[in-house]
Amino acid sequence: MLALYFDGALTLKDLPPPSVRPGEVLIRINLAGICGTDLEVLKGYHGFTGIPGHEFVGVVAGPGDSPWLGKRVVGEINLPCGRCELCRRGLEDHCRERQVLGLKGRDGAFAQYLSLPAANLHAVPPEVTDEAAVFTEPLAAALAALGAASPAYGDRVLVVGDGRLGLLISWVLALQGTEVHLVGHYLENLNLARPYGVMPFLEGDLPPGDYGVVVEASGAPEGLELALTRVRPRGWVVLKSTYAGRYALASEALVVPEVRLVGSRCGPFSPALRLLRQGWVDPRPLISQTFPLSRGLEAFVWARRPGVLKVLLDCWGEAA
Amino acid sequence: MLALYFDGALTLKDLPPPSVRPGEVLIRINLAGICGTDLEVLKGYHGFTGIPGHEFVGVVAGPGDSPWLGKRVVGEINLPCGRCELCRRGLEDHCRERQVLGLKGRDGAFAQYLSLPAANLHAVPPEVTDEAAVFTEPLAAALAALGAASPAYGDRVLVVGDGRLGLLISWVLALQGTEVHLVGHYLENLNLARPYGVMPFLEGDLPPGDYGVVVEASGAPEGLELALTRVRPRGWVVLKSTYAGRYALASEALVVPEVRLVGSRCGPFSPALRLLRQGWVDPRPLISQTFPLSRGLEAFVWARRPGVLKVLLDCWGEAA
Repeated sequence: MLALYFDGALTLKDLPPPSVRPGEVLIRINLAGICGTDLEVLKGYHGFTGIPGHEFVGVVAGPGDSPWLGKRVVGEINLPCGRCELCRRGLEDHCRERQVLGLKGRDGAFAQYLSLPAANLHAVPPEVTDEAAVFTEPLAAALAALGAASPAYGDRVLVVGDGRLGLLISWVLALQGTEVHLVGHYLENLNLARPYGVMPFLEGDLPPGDYGVVVEASGAPEGLELALTRVRPRGWVVLKSTYAGRYALASEALVVPEVRLVGSRCGPFSPALRLLRQGWVDPRPLISQTFPLSRGLEAFVWARRPGVLKVLLDCWGEAA
Repeated sequence: MLALYFDGALTLKDLPPPSVRPGEVLIRINLAGICGTDLEVLKGYHGFTGIPGHEFVGVVAGPGDSPWLGKRVVGEINLPCGRCELCRRGLEDHCRERQVLGLKGRDGAFAQYLSLPAANLHAVPPEVTDEAAVFTEPLAAALAALGAASPAYGDRVLVVGDGRLGLLISWVLALQGTEVHLVGHYLENLNLARPYGVMPFLEGDLPPGDYGVVVEASGAPEGLELALTRVRPRGWVVLKSTYAGRYALASEALVVPEVRLVGSRCGPFSPALRLLRQGWVDPRPLISQTFPLSRGLEAFVWARRPGVLKVLLDCWGEAA
């Protein structure tokens, strides 16, 4: 099968399809999405070697006796051990022995096939197109930002960062009836927030005032700086993105106003699929470009351009 | 009256007693406690000029028609404006216009008299000695550490720092039936945790394993580093103390394990007084030394010595 392979450099390879262990299924991948974390992997950030990619939609192609056979699916990306104390406490996504699809110990979705435990699968409702379903994982991550904070009723929310994740987060927060402001650098991206009732601002134009919750999704230390400046006393700052380097944190910035700074990573797939099925979130305007997998290297060049939103890989396009 | 006065340098002065505005009372101070924040004030940290000190116990000496007259009292240290949005939302302790006793815009307790609004007062039960009552404010701050985190049942707690605040925090956490470990540098201080069932450790001796909650009360960036290393995924780090300089925070340390880093400052006086009245907390072993106010400069030299716990000022001792 065709696949992108990373071992210090990213190359297009012809590889055998993945082995399928007991309890697992083989998935023929329709579309895969390039995420900011994938760009970090390619900088060697996670020490990962193999096929990257963790956002996908596909069709179960085996084994022949699987009740999932022929079903269109998305899949949760964490493969916990199921036995350790964290797993037994319901913290499987934090299992220290876990594999993570395309990120840790497990080949991912920038290929024509992948394998996953059947327990990780979610059926995609027929109303949800492949182009929408491929956003299930980042939409789930966006929903997790809601759960990480406990705003007071009436609190305004500021989302920092007008990339893919920042936009998705601003949308799902707006679906709560919350007054959401979004601050970023790209007018074209910011405008994608308007249909949801989110108020977008270029950074210099952000009106004065504080926010009960600030979600940092810019991936830059400056985003965290802005968040800590704008959160109200006893408010929440939700860190959704990692940044290179370190942020010089003054303890007074948290202790004196009693601010809560909370990290948030993966989220729940089922609510994300419900939002997509109902059409309350339509992520397709976030697609900047779709490349066939055979042009995957070009796709990565494109995905790195400033202001570019989601880049998709059509895993059988032109290459079938 | 005798008072310690700070205007870039700390000096002993003879000053007129404070003016008492409508709604306020005059308090004759029995004992006052030196706190880590006072030591910071003397470094110019808060830009404060005036009489420092915010931990005290005293007797209401005026006005003559006050229902508080003659009562032994402690007092909350924040004087909010009562009119701004934060005050109206119940966040009076975070009012941006507030005065803070001995810390911001208001003369404090290192004197023979202070004035405070009657609304700030709490009567000291007769069972509580002056030596215990003077700990009401730091004990309240210790109790606030409980409210800042939401541990899961069965979570172990680690308190970092064997100073006054770290010890008080370890005690009140132990009163919840929680398994509490305390890590510090001074054997003599660590041993004060044992009567409460807290398990003390010198830093190198801390056993492996993680904690659902870590309370950082060491006032050093290394304490925060240790806390982030030892907190479990989805756990809480409560920052109780400020440190000079800044901590170089890696966003992955919060985002990947979804850790919550929360600041906590002041706490509620009433529960603190209940603990003192019942004798469930007896802070008197924390007293390192008591100086008469006339030897206040010497008291500050003593309070700065490493490992020293609480230093008290007897505001009428030898000077009445």
